[in-house]
Amino acid sequence: MRKISESTIRRLSVYLRFLEQAKAPTISSGELARLGGTTSAQVRKDLSFFGSFGKRGLGYAVPELTRRIRDILGLERGYRVVLVGAGRMGGALVQYHGFKQRGFHITAIYDQDARKIGSRWNGLVVRDIRHLESDLRKEPTDIAIVVVPAEAAQEVVDRLVQAGVKAILNFAPVQLAVPRDVAVKTVNMAQELETLSFVLANR
Amino acid sequence: MRKISESTIRRLSVYLRFLEQAKAPTISSGELARLGGTTSAQVRKDLSFFGSFGKRGLGYAVPELTRRIRDILGLERGYRVVLVGAGRMGGALVQYHGFKQRGFHITAIYDQDARKIGSRWNGLVVRDIRHLESDLRKEPTDIAIVVVPAEAAQEVVDRLVQAGVKAILNFAPVQLAVPRDVAVKTVNMAQELETLSFVLANR
Repeated sequence: MRKISESTIRRLSVYLRFLEQAKAPTISSGELARLGGTTSAQVRKDLSFFGSFGKRGLGYAVPELTRRIRDILGLERGYRVVLVGAGRMGGALVQYHGFKQRGFHITAIYDQDARKIGSRWNGLVVRDIRHLESDLRKEPTDIAIVVVPAEAAQEVVDRLVQAGVKAILNFAPVQLAVPRDVAVKTVNMAQELETLSFVLANR
Repeated sequence: MRKISESTIRRLSVYLRFLEQAKAPTISSGELARLGGTTSAQVRKDLSFFGSFGKRGLGYAVPELTRRIRDILGLERGYRVVLVGAGRMGGALVQYHGFKQRGFHITAIYDQDARKIGSRWNGLVVRDIRHLESDLRKEPTDIAIVVVPAEAAQEVVDRLVQAGVKAILNFAPVQLAVPRDVAVKTVNMAQELETLSFVLANR
């Protein structure tokens, strides 16, 4: 398989969402483009990464394309996710319906704040971060979500990596150092607003 | 100015964050690439969109590059932001420090739930969504953040557009229809996890 850019992966995610909502048995590249805010040529290019899909003039078969994209994105299995940081954003993420729908199951929440430890969040009890390593030895996780202050993030990530976690979604506004075999994705909410301020400033 | 892709805008946002944290007076494209998880060639290409920056072998002057990127992203002014939807994610966003740091000021929060209306959030009183239009007539906003359930999102967006809002950050998992002169950016938290599941599934 050719190297796939993150932009392509993100667009595949978007196409998938629309495919899952589609009512018709087929969908055209033009329709996917319109829904995803891109061009038909881009849709065809994105899907061409994975071999031949669809027939000219007939569009893509929705169930097949859905299955292929889910497979490409690794969504045909479920993932265990632990969340570190029981703050407001952590609380919002724990309740986020979209995660479970996609097969991402938050199995544990950790914090170091004694006032939060033991409280119940969405059916899970917030655990003391001191138990992180022993818990992960017993029940390894696929992904960790890190929602701690910037100054605490690297230490938390070091502990997660040491415990064998290979994929981290980071909400702390800081660049994290990890070994080559660990994938980190940093989410920056302000960045999303900056794509809008760019538009407002350059129209 | 040539057309700039959203990927470039997103990388400029990332470079800006590192420039603001930089201690040295200059920074090389290699260093920016390392921090931003991309290549030196990509950094040079991204910055070349805006004319000539930096000197070969000397790197980029941090203060100048910071100012130029802030200018490009439209961050040299402040933005008024209203938030619609006083749920958990809305609450997390209201408290998000990164917004104010970047000049995005949340000036009002709206909800339709009588139990939430009147409650105080981060110094702001949650207002009845019924007052949206009259409030915006008195105090126009630059950007609206929509954090309502999927089935309510289009109606809220229609009202915002009708009231003159030109930029919308949408957290509802739904494709929104807006006029051509309105910019919408949809944030999908599950998508971020999907870039990680892709890595886990394809390593």
